Amino acid sequence: MEKSILITGAARSGKSALAERLALRPLGRAVYVATAEAWDDEMRDRIAAHQARRGAEWDNRHAPRDLVDMLIETDGDAPRLVDCLTLWLTNLMLGDADWRSEGERLAAALMHQKAPVIFVTNEVGAGIVPENRLAREFRDAAGWLNQTVAQACDTVILCVAGYPVRVKPNDFDF
Amino acid sequence: MEKSILITGAARSGKSALAERLALRPLGRAVYVATAEAWDDEMRDRIAAHQARRGAEWDNRHAPRDLVDMLIETDGDAPRLVDCLTLWLTNLMLGDADWRSEGERLAAALMHQKAPVIFVTNEVGAGIVPENRLAREFRDAAGWLNQTVAQACDTVILCVAGYPVRVKPNDFDF
Amino acid sequence: MEKSILITGAARSGKSALAERLALRPLGRAVYVATAEAWDDEMRDRIAAHQARRGAEWDNRHAPRDLVDMLIETDGDAPRLVDCLTLWLTNLMLGDADWRSEGERLAAALMHQKAPVIFVTNEVGAGIVPENRLAREFRDAAGWLNQTVAQACDTVILCVAGYPVRVKPNDFDF
Repeated sequence: MEKSILITGAARSGKSALAERLALRPLGRAVYVATAEAWDDEMRDRIAAHQARRGAEWDNRHAPRDLVDMLIETDGDAPRLVDCLTLWLTNLMLGDADWRSEGERLAAALMHQKAPVIFVTNEVGAGIVPENRLAREFRDAAGWLNQTVAQACDTVILCVAGYPVRVKPNDFDF
Repeated sequence: MEKSILITGAARSGKSALAERLALRPLGRAVYVATAEAWDDEMRDRIAAHQARRGAEWDNRHAPRDLVDMLIETDGDAPRLVDCLTLWLTNLMLGDADWRSEGERLAAALMHQKAPVIFVTNEVGAGIVPENRLAREFRDAAGWLNQTVAQACDTVILCVAGYPVRVKPNDFDF
Repeated sequence: MEKSILITGAARSGKSALAERLALRPLGRAVYVATAEAWDDEMRDRIAAHQARRGAEWDNRHAPRDLVDMLIETDGDAPRLVDCLTLWLTNLMLGDADWRSEGERLAAALMHQKAPVIFVTNEVGAGIVPENRLAREFRDAAGWLNQTVAQACDTVILCVAGYPVRVKPNDFDF
């Protein structure tokens, strides 16, 4: 098993740019696994802005729901960048899929991957408790998914203002 | 005085599970001080889910408002886990109590405790400024309480995706 | 060029008090550059509470929009504390200014400053995605500005419960 990395942080904290640097570092090329569904124009603009940063060194794939199968299918020598887990979770929840089973399948599949996977995810639970019940369920699910994937990764990074803060492994004795 | 610990972080970042491990480490048993009021079914479900994780090694107590007295009453050899400060603050504010005096009493009382106290709290101020005035007052109060208790603790931990990031003490020279 | 510092963190996480200590450390006096516009009574109260903490060692200035000119004008021997970048950004956006150009001008100007600048900013992107489109645009802009200023600073600090967590420089090899 190769080393996998989870990059979390606030919106616009530089997670994707950092993930791209890390994914290209070993070979100069990598597989980009987008999870976003282009539901509306705003999302289409965001996807276009992200793609504009990427060149020919990227093999672009799209896995809004079948992420585990996509990782199995693309497991060769090149790192895979999954951007991002929170959009994947959104798609699963909106499609009434069993997101908890899918999250556990993802963590289990990571153990058998030959090439590394770099995941981008989001911190969504550090604001005031949302009044909207669906929003509360989503932030609970996102927190659970982040913990579940973090356990299966060798490295966890918190991105702050474009810079990485080490979360796992660390020298904190517990 | 024994070492006290403040564990903060986003919702569902693994704070409670980490706090439980730390509380049981010295003796294999500890006092669990719940602060939640079961206002509605959703909260009752959350409390039940948290209790389901705890076995006979826990002496379960309930202190939705009189937390300082509870800490004095339970100060023996076993660590106390307080879960959590933000719900305690919510109860004080909803009951029109003087939360600022209570927070200062809590920090002062910590200085005289023989057994350690492990506090769970929440980061609630890292989202967009809430439109609701009460929500703004709550996040200001929660930030103040976190700072006040952090000063009285030996260790402060930020929990991210289930892993601890060291906040206090650290090697940052200021 | 002297060392500049960016201090970010949640609301009420102790950023301003830490920034004030850092600004006064070299000479015992510093320039305070407030960016807040007193739009309403609540904001006036917040400004007054912040000012009450500051004594005669502070040279108080006000730059709700012309922050770059203010830094050039006050560049002598004493550190400047800018509190805060998110309010400056708010003023630029509400005034329909070209905030992106202003942010880039700010980062470029930092390179030529003789005296240090300590910036306070806010983490606003770690909650649930806001339903309000303007709020989403603001948090994207704030994240971009934080990254842009962080790149031009020698030190970046995340403030948690009143204590600094090192973000830049760090020992994380990337």
